Amino acid sequence: MRHTISILVENKFGVLARVAGMFSGRGFNIDTLNVGPTLDPSASRMTIVVRGDDKVLEQVNKQLEKLVDVIDVQDFRDEEYVDRELVLLRVTATSKTRAEVMQICDIFRAKIVDVQPKSLTIEITGNESKVEKFIDLMKTFGVLDLTRTGKVAMHRGMQLMRGARGGKERVA
Amino acid sequence: MRHTISILVENKFGVLARVAGMFSGRGFNIDTLNVGPTLDPSASRMTIVVRGDDKVLEQVNKQLEKLVDVIDVQDFRDEEYVDRELVLLRVTATSKTRAEVMQICDIFRAKIVDVQPKSLTIEITGNESKVEKFIDLMKTFGVLDLTRTGKVAMHRGMQLMRGARGGKERVA
Repeated sequence: MRHTISILVENKFGVLARVAGMFSGRGFNIDTLNVGPTLDPSASRMTIVVRGDDKVLEQVNKQLEKLVDVIDVQDFRDEEYVDRELVLLRVTATSKTRAEVMQICDIFRAKIVDVQPKSLTIEITGNESKVEKFIDLMKTFGVLDLTRTGKVAMHRGMQLMRGARGGKERVA
Repeated sequence: MRHTISILVENKFGVLARVAGMFSGRGFNIDTLNVGPTLDPSASRMTIVVRGDDKVLEQVNKQLEKLVDVIDVQDFRDEEYVDRELVLLRVTATSKTRAEVMQICDIFRAKIVDVQPKSLTIEITGNESKVEKFIDLMKTFGVLDLTRTGKVAMHRGMQLMRGARGGKERVA
């Protein structure tokens, strides 16, 4: 099964390699991973999308929580959450096809961020299925280049993630 | 100096940990990192933003290129590129402040992706300075939660990144 896991870590050398190693060492396939700063300059948040056995994953999550530099681990599988991904892609677009590409961008609320004589660079955000559909449509025009950030996720409710305000506890 | 580096890697266990280890082992601070799929199912693209000495970084890039599972390394420092980041944030918004938060979202072209009685979940994309300004403004209302994908980057020109179409060479 696929899981989206959010991990709050201290900004220390080697944390990323240790966390990534913990998943790959157990045979989990990391689909996407990203790390970025939080409001607390001493902490970063990682979001990992992995595929693998549910029971083994529970063990991995428990082991992660025991790592010195890991502050918090959340598995989004059972909870209501919003998830988004950003994709930059450069698509072949000549004077003949540009209008059609732009129409599809409009429908998907994608933004054109650069124009060249024979290509358009497009930014699209959304959940995975929306983004995948857009990429599939663009393949018919010719995708010259593509780069994806991987998924980030956030609870819908009023829960407060630890570390969001400098390491405070989660509230109901 | 800060660098944005794009690395095309084979989808093999441990590549991520090895690449991340190569930077942290040399004393580079990884600001953001992300890994996502490409059109070629056997390859992934990593984008890393690091800070550190320019000369050491050149060495690191050369060593990266020698790694078996690394297909291509690009340092964006000297070239024209588009870069984008996605941030999800949940901001305190009561009936009194909601209109003001929404106005600022409008100005920044941020999207409201979830509404709760006392908060809004907002998606914003842009380059780093735009995103940072928005976060700073939202701090005055109260940021309950925040997660960032880290930067992705793409050349402006007609260059073709290797791997974009299944490992083909770059063209002028």
